Amino acid sequence: MRLNPDLAATAAPPIMEVQRWVRETPLAPGLPLINLSQAAPAGPPPDSLRRHLAEAMMEDPAAHLYGPVLGNTALREAIARRWSADYGGEIAPGQVAVTAGCNQAFCVAVATACGPGDAVMLPYPWYFNHAMWLRMSGIGCVPLACGEGMLPDIEAARAAMTPAVRAIVLVTPNNPTGAEYPDALVQAFYDLAAEAGAILIVDETYRDFHSEPGAPHGLFGRGGWEETLVHLYSFSKVFRLTGHRTGAMIAGAARLAEAEKFLDTMTISPPQTGQIAALFGLERLAQWVAEERDEVLSRRAALLAALDGLPGWTVHGAGAYFAWVEPPFDLPSGATARRLLAEQSLLVLPGAMFVPADRPTRALRVAFANADAEGLAETGRRLAAFRP
Amino acid sequence: MRLNPDLAATAAPPIMEVQRWVRETPLAPGLPLINLSQAAPAGPPPDSLRRHLAEAMMEDPAAHLYGPVLGNTALREAIARRWSADYGGEIAPGQVAVTAGCNQAFCVAVATACGPGDAVMLPYPWYFNHAMWLRMSGIGCVPLACGEGMLPDIEAARAAMTPAVRAIVLVTPNNPTGAEYPDALVQAFYDLAAEAGAILIVDETYRDFHSEPGAPHGLFGRGGWEETLVHLYSFSKVFRLTGHRTGAMIAGAARLAEAEKFLDTMTISPPQTGQIAALFGLERLAQWVAEERDEVLSRRAALLAALDGLPGWTVHGAGAYFAWVEPPFDLPSGATARRLLAEQSLLVLPGAMFVPADRPTRALRVAFANADAEGLAETGRRLAAFRP
Repeated sequence: MRLNPDLAATAAPPIMEVQRWVRETPLAPGLPLINLSQAAPAGPPPDSLRRHLAEAMMEDPAAHLYGPVLGNTALREAIARRWSADYGGEIAPGQVAVTAGCNQAFCVAVATACGPGDAVMLPYPWYFNHAMWLRMSGIGCVPLACGEGMLPDIEAARAAMTPAVRAIVLVTPNNPTGAEYPDALVQAFYDLAAEAGAILIVDETYRDFHSEPGAPHGLFGRGGWEETLVHLYSFSKVFRLTGHRTGAMIAGAARLAEAEKFLDTMTISPPQTGQIAALFGLERLAQWVAEERDEVLSRRAALLAALDGLPGWTVHGAGAYFAWVEPPFDLPSGATARRLLAEQSLLVLPGAMFVPADRPTRALRVAFANADAEGLAETGRRLAAFRP
Repeated sequence: MRLNPDLAATAAPPIMEVQRWVRETPLAPGLPLINLSQAAPAGPPPDSLRRHLAEAMMEDPAAHLYGPVLGNTALREAIARRWSADYGGEIAPGQVAVTAGCNQAFCVAVATACGPGDAVMLPYPWYFNHAMWLRMSGIGCVPLACGEGMLPDIEAARAAMTPAVRAIVLVTPNNPTGAEYPDALVQAFYDLAAEAGAILIVDETYRDFHSEPGAPHGLFGRGGWEETLVHLYSFSKVFRLTGHRTGAMIAGAARLAEAEKFLDTMTISPPQTGQIAALFGLERLAQWVAEERDEVLSRRAALLAALDGLPGWTVHGAGAYFAWVEPPFDLPSGATARRLLAEQSLLVLPGAMFVPADRPTRALRVAFANADAEGLAETGRRLAAFRP
């Protein structure tokens, strides 16, 4: 069977690989599984939102029919209003696109800038789906190692730039490391992209769980931001809507006209249920979101406390849903993860899933937001009991 | 601003162009708009389905959360069961993928077979999103003119084959022409694809409105079909779910493993609401679908009756939601369509939107399923009154 060689050369999705481990691995006796693998809320959205959706299913015929390719007008307006206020910039509804999830927003953002033979600069550890999309699309990847605090280094980035690089990608708060990128660093990357005539893609899927109040960066206040900046967002985590596939992309109107061709061809219009939910959430769930954020921040503190007593373990980053943790023993991350599952019924993802194949790592990604304080304390106990 | 040249060279989506016409064109006095432009049900799904969705929003937490990349197991099983019975073949759940609409199914089907520099054979008039996806992906298009009965000619196809062709696409019943392809023709194209080591993509989005009962083709009865055949389907039309984005792709398990990488990267999992609706529809709405089909077939008859009295007009194809109609006067299709809108408040799509840019056409696509018998009679009167 002849296959597209670029797709065939793309690695299989890591999450499914890990789900296979879980099916194949007998758990240790007496230890129920603690699953800290996926960044996904385990529970449904709040009652008020579910009730709103149920009513829409019955009362709103438009909930079942095609909408505009770039999203419903009311939602685009609500996003423009809220983002303008939150970031201290001027964002028009015509600079907002709603997408079928933030993964799709990333794919279309890259597609507006890059064809085969072009390249994207991707700091690593990276979100694996980003690397997969580049590989399967025949787009080059310029990997950029993160250093101290799991931050990418602007001078290293400048040195690694090539004429083929049409986009630089930053994820903040970061998946997989949890690092929150300082404004000055994000702005420096913006300047680097602008000087090269490239775009800066800033994926802020986990923005609502940032540990600092206020705008996480000042990019929307820059004159002419629409030439360089592409902001990505997800409604999946903040309102627990992962099953509805609703994300957003903010960019210049000229770029969105290109995005519209891609989105029309790929999905025609974003799913309505998720758009209805996102609009309700923006208008009505501010208090609920604030409580969710407090809970995530308290889980972060609980994880850090649990790791604090572990001799030799290093927490390189912790924020949003994730911590990037390095054990003190000399095992590849895949071996550690499989043995933690088999011996301690603890599921975390090996760092190797987030880095280039030729850069070995011992680190693990811990999606701590999936466990409560007691679960995280127990996580610490199981890590302490682990003897490699 | 530097853009991806392949995306920039892709034409803008025709439906939006036409929506712009409607906004800009004052309607003729006393003539309300008859919109026969888009193939989309205007009303919501039946009550029982909406009630089922409303209950799921409240009672089923999984309705809001990620599911498997290739779709929920129960839906894949139901599709496999029903398709096996309907087509007289053996289709396993592992050969079924659920997608975020049939457009996405097409994109991923092509992506499994073709990279940049490969090519796809596309009979025309074509579904414009198919041509757009090839163009923006840097994949070549080998256009194949349809002839008598708006059917592609197998000998012309054989003569046009090149080593770059990795897929041949058939849409039956056809969008935009309404033509229903005979089994023997579909099988001949299957043989042609198989001989070339290419795949045959058969898009059956409008299958439920086929004018003949029984299996529309015997491809699933061929030994080793999974090497060559990729079947595409949409739940959007049959259950009025266009806003939920739910389609399907049936192919060999090895090809679906490649598709899984693409779908995971693009949307993670298909939207849950549409999957819940599709499963309910398959299990509970057979009688409703039969009535919908009768209604569409009676609309087809009403359109044919209305056109019958128009001197010089030729109906080249009529089926599913569409007729492909050629007026007797020497105007390009775009001019005819714009004048029909301005002078008769009648919106149909110009044939030029469905053919290569260098092949002029006078034909129009009439999406007749969007009007009832009286609307179609009135359509006939307005066409008769039109004086170019």
